[in-house]
Order: sequence, then structure tokens, then C-alpha cells
Amino acid sequence: MGCIFCKIAGGEIPCRKVYEDAHALVFMDIAEDVDGHMVAIPKKHVENVFDCDGETLCNLMSAVKKVTDHCVGLCNYDGINLLHASGKSAGQSVPHLHIHIIPRKTGDGIEAWPPFKGAKMPIDEVWKTIKL
Amino acid sequence: MGCIFCKIAGGEIPCRKVYEDAHALVFMDIAEDVDGHMVAIPKKHVENVFDCDGETLCNLMSAVKKVTDHCVGLCNYDGINLLHASGKSAGQSVPHLHIHIIPRKTGDGIEAWPPFKGAKMPIDEVWKTIKL
Repeated sequence: MGCIFCKIAGGEIPCRKVYEDAHALVFMDIAEDVDGHMVAIPKKHVENVFDCDGETLCNLMSAVKKVTDHCVGLCNYDGINLLHASGKSAGQSVPHLHIHIIPRKTGDGIEAWPPFKGAKMPIDEVWKTIKL
Repeated sequence: MGCIFCKIAGGEIPCRKVYEDAHALVFMDIAEDVDGHMVAIPKKHVENVFDCDGETLCNLMSAVKKVTDHCVGLCNYDGINLLHASGKSAGQSVPHLHIHIIPRKTGDGIEAWPPFKGAKMPIDEVWKTIKL
């Protein structure tokens, strides 16, 4: 297995650990593209949200919530952004499920919404395609 | 209660429903800023991830996963982005917990990553502040 996030979870590659429990790990993203950027991963290798079982996803979100609550409760942040990509088409870089956590402060000047350029298809047409 | 998402969940305001179960609702976002834009909400009113209990968050993610699996399994998509904001500083517009779902296709030309401009603070300084 050459999965870099598995190696981080297993301690083979070091990281700036923010939080760890039996099922999940949260560490600083080394991209340094925005202040406070963290990544939350399940310790178990799942590639994306599609091949992730419900329990693993719940455990991961529980870890995400612990970190976000900590940031807002004790570290002087007052907001949080979560970002996720599953699949190469969505921009997923590392094929091990991960959720980006960006802690926010009023007036931090961070733009955390993507530069969407407007829908090309009629909303009702897309809706009919994707509703369950 | 003047919460627009509670009114949508209660059927008082109509929506383009994509998926519904006992705990959650997924519907088309009317912003039409990007093709396929959906919003997933818990039926129970919680303002953000900070005041959301673990069970409600798990149930919401279960609904998100059902929709994303459906999009990729049956609707010809091959990726998914999830976006979330908790708190005004993070850009949360409606004060009822919600997760944005953007289904993706290879070559769709959508840019779903925010225009981050680089970290301003040393990563180790931030890390020491936020690690649990």
C-alpha cells in the first residue's frame, strides 16, 4: 500500500497532529494555502465517500465535530468551513477519504466559497435526473 | 419561528425535493450558481455544526451519502463536492445547519475549490493554538 494518509495514520510519516481517537485522525494540512487548514481522515482506508460505510463516516464526522467545537469553544474562532471532494472529477488529490476543516474568525478576509460561474442547465432538467 | 429551512422541511414552503427520510431532507438549491447544486438539512432545527448533536449529524451524513451514491451509481456522475459553513464568519447564510452537495462529471469545467490566497501565519504557530 502506498497510501500517504495510511502512512500518516500509522505514524510512518509524521504529521502535525491536532486530534486522534480510535477511528480518526485530524492533522494540519501542509499546503499552507489558508490559515488553520486541517485534514480529517478515517484511520481505516476508504477511498472516498462512495466506498465508505456509514459507521466510518459517522466516526469521522464525530472527530470533525470535536475539532470544530474545540476551535470555537476554546481557540477564539467563531466559524468553520468544511470542504470535501470524492473522485478525481471533483478535485480529490489523495485517494483516501478526507474532509478539509478551515477554522474562521470574523474579519479574517478568507474567501471559502468556490468561484462558481452559474448553472448551464435548467434546474428542473437536472432535478428530474437526480431525484431519488 | 421564521426559519426558511424549517418551513421547507415542514412543507410550508415548496422545494424541488431530491431525497427525504425521517431525519433529513435534500433539495435543489435555487441559487443556480452551479449545475446540480443541492442542499441537505436535518429536519430538526439546529443552527450549525456546533449546536448539532452527534446523532443528528450522523443521520444527515447518511442522507448525504444516499444522494451522492445515487448520483454516481445511477445518474452518470463520477464525483462529488461537499461544502459547509457554520457561523456568519464562515459565510453561513441560512442559520439552519446545511451541507451543499455538488455532483461532478469529468470535464464539467467546474472549479469547486475556494480561491485561498495563502496562509499568513506560520503553520506551527496555528497548530500550537488549535491542537487538542
